[in-house]
Amino acid sequence: MQNVDTLIHARWIIPIEPENAVYEHHSLVIYAGKILDLLPTEQAKQRYQSDDTIELNTHALTAGFVNAHTHAAMTLMRGIADDLPLMDWLQNHIWPLEQKWMDEEFVRDGTDLAIAEMLRGGTTCFNDMYFFPEVAAKQAIQRGIRASLGLIVIDFPTVWAQHSGEYIEKGVSLYHELLAAELISTPFAPHAPYTVSDEPLERINELAQGFNLPVHIHLHETAHEVESAFAEKGQRPMQRLYDLGLVNDSLIAVHATQLNDEEIQLLSDVGASIVHCPESNLKLASGFCPVAKCLAAGVNVALGTDGAASNNDLDMLGEMRTAALLGKAVSKDASAIPAMTALRMATINGAKALGLEHKIGSLEIGKAADVIAIDLSELETQPLYCPVSQIVYATSRQQVSDVWVAGQQLLKSRQLTTFDMDELKAIATKWQARLSEKTYDH
Amino acid sequence: MQNVDTLIHARWIIPIEPENAVYEHHSLVIYAGKILDLLPTEQAKQRYQSDDTIELNTHALTAGFVNAHTHAAMTLMRGIADDLPLMDWLQNHIWPLEQKWMDEEFVRDGTDLAIAEMLRGGTTCFNDMYFFPEVAAKQAIQRGIRASLGLIVIDFPTVWAQHSGEYIEKGVSLYHELLAAELISTPFAPHAPYTVSDEPLERINELAQGFNLPVHIHLHETAHEVESAFAEKGQRPMQRLYDLGLVNDSLIAVHATQLNDEEIQLLSDVGASIVHCPESNLKLASGFCPVAKCLAAGVNVALGTDGAASNNDLDMLGEMRTAALLGKAVSKDASAIPAMTALRMATINGAKALGLEHKIGSLEIGKAADVIAIDLSELETQPLYCPVSQIVYATSRQQVSDVWVAGQQLLKSRQLTTFDMDELKAIATKWQARLSEKTYDH
Repeated sequence: MQNVDTLIHARWIIPIEPENAVYEHHSLVIYAGKILDLLPTEQAKQRYQSDDTIELNTHALTAGFVNAHTHAAMTLMRGIADDLPLMDWLQNHIWPLEQKWMDEEFVRDGTDLAIAEMLRGGTTCFNDMYFFPEVAAKQAIQRGIRASLGLIVIDFPTVWAQHSGEYIEKGVSLYHELLAAELISTPFAPHAPYTVSDEPLERINELAQGFNLPVHIHLHETAHEVESAFAEKGQRPMQRLYDLGLVNDSLIAVHATQLNDEEIQLLSDVGASIVHCPESNLKLASGFCPVAKCLAAGVNVALGTDGAASNNDLDMLGEMRTAALLGKAVSKDASAIPAMTALRMATINGAKALGLEHKIGSLEIGKAADVIAIDLSELETQPLYCPVSQIVYATSRQQVSDVWVAGQQLLKSRQLTTFDMDELKAIATKWQARLSEKTYDH
Repeated sequence: MQNVDTLIHARWIIPIEPENAVYEHHSLVIYAGKILDLLPTEQAKQRYQSDDTIELNTHALTAGFVNAHTHAAMTLMRGIADDLPLMDWLQNHIWPLEQKWMDEEFVRDGTDLAIAEMLRGGTTCFNDMYFFPEVAAKQAIQRGIRASLGLIVIDFPTVWAQHSGEYIEKGVSLYHELLAAELISTPFAPHAPYTVSDEPLERINELAQGFNLPVHIHLHETAHEVESAFAEKGQRPMQRLYDLGLVNDSLIAVHATQLNDEEIQLLSDVGASIVHCPESNLKLASGFCPVAKCLAAGVNVALGTDGAASNNDLDMLGEMRTAALLGKAVSKDASAIPAMTALRMATINGAKALGLEHKIGSLEIGKAADVIAIDLSELETQPLYCPVSQIVYATSRQQVSDVWVAGQQLLKSRQLTTFDMDELKAIATKWQARLSEKTYDH
């Protein structure tokens, strides 16, 4: 009998790889933060023992969700300005609030609330784009979640940096500082083609190639973005990025609601990734990403919630459901984006986009133990004919019972292990009071 | 001090009428199944007393949701055949299963599971279309939920009736039997234009006018339906219904994804209702209902989940969110279907469609006490700037804490009061085993 750190006996295990596998009465064995074994429970009980043995008789275990695009700190602005056209929302609400309030404390508190919400919903890794990424890194490490923290670059001054040169400089030094942090990676994150000019984009591309980092950027979010770029520069933003050398296998193109067939083929040819954010795209009326077409062309499509200010949650189960439902309607094919595809978009495809597929995104021996358990015994997921269908089409995030990141249990029977809930609620209350003040500033 | 049955002190009350009202620190007073008063808590504590006094300090009270289109018993087939084209789904899965298994026991058990799920999610009234409505009525009355049970008519024989004449006859006698049942109403429910011929439709129209009953029918669900009807009869199904006299203020037109401007204007002119089922329409790739256009034209648009076999849940909070998000994208306007409109679609508009707006759909003095409480203190709904926005865009159905129908408390701190949960789970398990058998029949 081999002693191991954690031994989980589960009713179902959905390993993501191999594709379409669903194991019944299997066990996951965790040792030194990694998956040591995955085998039938009967055999696991003969081979392994652990002081930390968990029986999950009505649960499915699967890989933790990868939220491939968010702005974690913006959780503080959840629902503060809804049902508004995009530019009114940004210019008259979000940006003035950020200008007034965004600082280290804002990012620390907002990121903390976001991490807590994400863990409670089964997200074990998030790809962030926001200011003060060093503060977000500190919170992610403290709470134990895996994070891909964008080294943000934008032409405009903020309290974090004054000009694109300073953003890049700060980014490079943060990249070096965080190289040894096991849970953290640092893609470059130029905000968008319309907010970052050619020179910094070229510099980012050189650095990203040199450091082997992904480049995370909003791209073709709306028809307006594409049309106004074309009117101004005579080319679509993706063409401009291509000319600057950024359309390659490091590209994480977020939103991509406006894609012609040539662009889809190009993304496939170079091995770039798209992050589909269906709820944000719907809420801001940005357009419909042609997900089924992209997948058929071989593009890697991951899934993101976007920030809570435009969603208004960080719920990857909900996002998966919306992606599966919407993908069928947009492609006029009820068999498009089946449940397993949606689950892969939320796990292994996210890992691929972030360049982390060697480490996370599936329950395979040798990968990090980023694992979640979902309780399917609730009335709302009964009767049960297929656990994957149930997870994607009927399960609420409240049914996520347990979460591990690199073998550390961060959610235990619905309780967060690295947070104080009273503290979190006090943080929310504090910012609610502060940000509500803006009503009186107008 | 006046003695009353129930006194609820709430952090917020969203009464639905008057429109856009959100009261803080108000109380709802229930007496003899009805809303006796709604007033500031400070005053309520001076005027009323009750042995059943409830303090809901972090909750919003609002009107119970009206699920304006479902097939409750089909909950037994939740997730049994997903990600399939509509006709494959119907012809090779749903219909053979129904033919083999559908009977009184099926309807009793499936309706029971559906009622439990709906109550746990804040639905206090559902508009059903299924066979054995007399069995569904018995279950609804036993469990205490309000139900509008369609007197189904279809040209084809089933175990319930052999031909349209027998369906109508059974329906008429059930209408008479249930006239005295306070919680039950019985619209006619001809299945669809393509499954009910002219003669029974004319007869239904006469009877519906005579009894003053709504007529609940699937209409213009898919482009295929409209095109094949046009090819066969030279007119669109709505035109045919119009010629038969059924397009009037009694019409409950379900789905309506295919509407031209003239049809929208016609529905508005006659005062007909549409039931929008966004998640079913997406999942079956049926098309997009032009909700914003319909609302702008003055059409009453209610909301339904459809059956759990094509959704896969009976979650009106989720349906509201999908309706609000999708409505913006379809109309290319982020300010379309604001949160309050979505909430009205799920309450008062549903009541109007069912001809019950004098009784339910809002928290107004004199109306039935069909009331729900939603706990907004969860991390996922913090910080909170606007309770209506939070309910529509960030709340899960698990946050529905308490539910009353006609003053009777049916959900109490998340516990169903008229069900035995073990019994419900046993029912689900029984049917899961039976319906799974079909795999081996093929």
